[in-house]
Amino acid sequence: MSKENPRVVIIGAGFGGLRVARELNRAALQVTLIDRHNYHLFQPLLYQVATAGISPEEIAYPVRAILRKQRNLEFRLASVEAVDFSSQRLQTSTGEISYDYLVLAMGSETNFFGLESVARNGFGLKELDDAVSIRNHILRMFEVAVHEPDPEIRRAMLTFVIVGGGPTGVECAGALAELIRLVLIKDYPGLNIRDVRILLLEALDKVLAPFPEPLREVAAKTLWKKYIELRFGAAVINFDGQCVYLKSGEAIPAYTLIWTAGVSAANLAGRLGLHQGRQGRIIVKPTLQVPDHPQVFAIGDVAYLEDSQGRPFPMMATVALQQATIAAKNIPRHMKGEPLHNFIYDDLGSLATIGRSSAIAQIGHFEFSGYLAWLMWSVVHVYQLIGFRNRIIVLINWAWDYFLYDRAVRLIIPDGT
Amino acid sequence: MSKENPRVVIIGAGFGGLRVARELNRAALQVTLIDRHNYHLFQPLLYQVATAGISPEEIAYPVRAILRKQRNLEFRLASVEAVDFSSQRLQTSTGEISYDYLVLAMGSETNFFGLESVARNGFGLKELDDAVSIRNHILRMFEVAVHEPDPEIRRAMLTFVIVGGGPTGVECAGALAELIRLVLIKDYPGLNIRDVRILLLEALDKVLAPFPEPLREVAAKTLWKKYIELRFGAAVINFDGQCVYLKSGEAIPAYTLIWTAGVSAANLAGRLGLHQGRQGRIIVKPTLQVPDHPQVFAIGDVAYLEDSQGRPFPMMATVALQQATIAAKNIPRHMKGEPLHNFIYDDLGSLATIGRSSAIAQIGHFEFSGYLAWLMWSVVHVYQLIGFRNRIIVLINWAWDYFLYDRAVRLIIPDGT
Repeated sequence: MSKENPRVVIIGAGFGGLRVARELNRAALQVTLIDRHNYHLFQPLLYQVATAGISPEEIAYPVRAILRKQRNLEFRLASVEAVDFSSQRLQTSTGEISYDYLVLAMGSETNFFGLESVARNGFGLKELDDAVSIRNHILRMFEVAVHEPDPEIRRAMLTFVIVGGGPTGVECAGALAELIRLVLIKDYPGLNIRDVRILLLEALDKVLAPFPEPLREVAAKTLWKKYIELRFGAAVINFDGQCVYLKSGEAIPAYTLIWTAGVSAANLAGRLGLHQGRQGRIIVKPTLQVPDHPQVFAIGDVAYLEDSQGRPFPMMATVALQQATIAAKNIPRHMKGEPLHNFIYDDLGSLATIGRSSAIAQIGHFEFSGYLAWLMWSVVHVYQLIGFRNRIIVLINWAWDYFLYDRAVRLIIPDGT
Repeated sequence: MSKENPRVVIIGAGFGGLRVARELNRAALQVTLIDRHNYHLFQPLLYQVATAGISPEEIAYPVRAILRKQRNLEFRLASVEAVDFSSQRLQTSTGEISYDYLVLAMGSETNFFGLESVARNGFGLKELDDAVSIRNHILRMFEVAVHEPDPEIRRAMLTFVIVGGGPTGVECAGALAELIRLVLIKDYPGLNIRDVRILLLEALDKVLAPFPEPLREVAAKTLWKKYIELRFGAAVINFDGQCVYLKSGEAIPAYTLIWTAGVSAANLAGRLGLHQGRQGRIIVKPTLQVPDHPQVFAIGDVAYLEDSQGRPFPMMATVALQQATIAAKNIPRHMKGEPLHNFIYDDLGSLATIGRSSAIAQIGHFEFSGYLAWLMWSVVHVYQLIGFRNRIIVLINWAWDYFLYDRAVRLIIPDGT
């Protein structure tokens, strides 16, 4: 690693940041990758950790192990406190770092839209410890409910409210329904399944909004078949830990609220003094450069860019990955004074699963659902998991679930709460 | 489950408690099994969680899943606060339970022998969260050490002191040496391996004391070959988090101390008002009954009983399992007024591993070491793991370690500290 090579600092080891680091493998650059965690998190399967299907270790992979062979890379476990764009320096929890190029790839975090009681008493589902906390909480609810004599309290303990009809909410509701109806019912012989309710609350009038109407209908029907009460126009305004209050005045006694109804750009984005678009995302040019800061790029969930029809690119792994490739190309081009590439999104389609043998898929003009879509969902997700061993272990756990109607890891373990 | 059947309450779902519950499967009894955790912990592999070889989920198995088919059993997630032997009632964190027979099987906990600074700044290695805390701490030490400019502080961050030359200390030291020298050295290219020290401190003059002299010699040599500084007559008196102080006056700068030098009966044992032997263990008769309380049995680590030569039975899984079988036979016999069995220990031998391809074994009159002992150790431990899926996953992780010189799960995740 030559001292003269310019330094690229990448903030965030999610899908985008990791891809930028990898694609700069052969560039004459020093690359520093910073993350608060020492692992890359495979967020699409986070809901399976929350519902006891797989263990946290299976969707988290040490960054140093992923990038071990990359000679021009240094990893730093730290959180970024501030960026001084004029002197090109970062302040981190482990000291200062100067950069020649900066890639902002911090991703997004749960947005409770200022609902403090929900933030305090409910669960988000974005981080590994969110998922472990949810798993612990659900299992604890069953442990206390079986000994609860008051039927009203018992029902509230066994009522699980999931807020948000996007992919995370739908996948989480489906997996939770299966955990309870296929597995926990066997663990708790004294339990009356009629005491269990799962509600999926959506403030607007559709689930899985980006999918076309017929697939959304399939998804809604599948949810109902799993005894999930799907409610439209249901806006949560308060949750005190024992009851969920809706804007309509309705009160739903429930001890569990999982909030998947909103995300915004990571907190750091708002502290940088840059122009922000919707959801606090940092506005970028089509080259992914931050205006007035040609040596600063932003990609993925944290970047705000509109397509040719004026719609912002969605917060999705595929967008982050494709933007990472463009950013990694544009940095060396900028160094050499060559013209930069504009980001063009290649929509590979969308997949969402609602549980056993059930998913919906939109690939180009093809729309399909059911078993085939579920198989495709499984193959795509296992393939994308980093690490050969993790792929095998997740496959074993899924096969276990699928054939034995069991769940692998329903443990209540310390979760830092 | 008939209301008239007498109730057996078992405290603790470790090796002993679980075995009693299982063996009472067909008895005309109501069995209530109480534990603070919802899982059975396979303690012999705990050190592998601490050294990032396997994940916590692989050595913990939900009690309800293990005992799901047992119709006369109820599991209760609770901690026991007190026992009233005269009215035959337990106070627990989730209410009162009355019993006709009581089995005390709470096991043991780390004993710091009153060394408060060690208890506060060091780690025990008895519970699942101990192991996760150690894993997080070791990995954090490497993350901070690579950026530490002061060489004295850096060396202290990379000095790992393990106290206690019993099987846990030896296995932990061996696994830690391999984690560092085979895996972490690749993760931290800026790291100078000469800065790393692992010390195994033993207050007396032998490691693995129950094994015969020639095998102890093999173990000591194997530890040295792994660059573990094995020190005899080294008694720790203080640890402030940055330096370990010995009785001799020696000070060893080190940020990590793992204490495996002592265990005592679980805390509850001391609060019951029963007669206690060494290590706070509850004195039992050869029938495993507590004197003056014919309907109360104690087994495993929490029970104190001497063999025919006046030596207390060791705190080992095999003793707990064999005592469990006797207790499960004696309860129905006591109900029927039949004479009770006395406990006779069938010593199946001992196994201990010091790392890759290296172990020592004593089976009856056979003593051997090396690869064959290591293979036997592996087979025995995988076989004893509860759950077919856990066996497969542990095997995959071990094969991964063994053939690729890698470690599966070196993640820093929330650990409740």
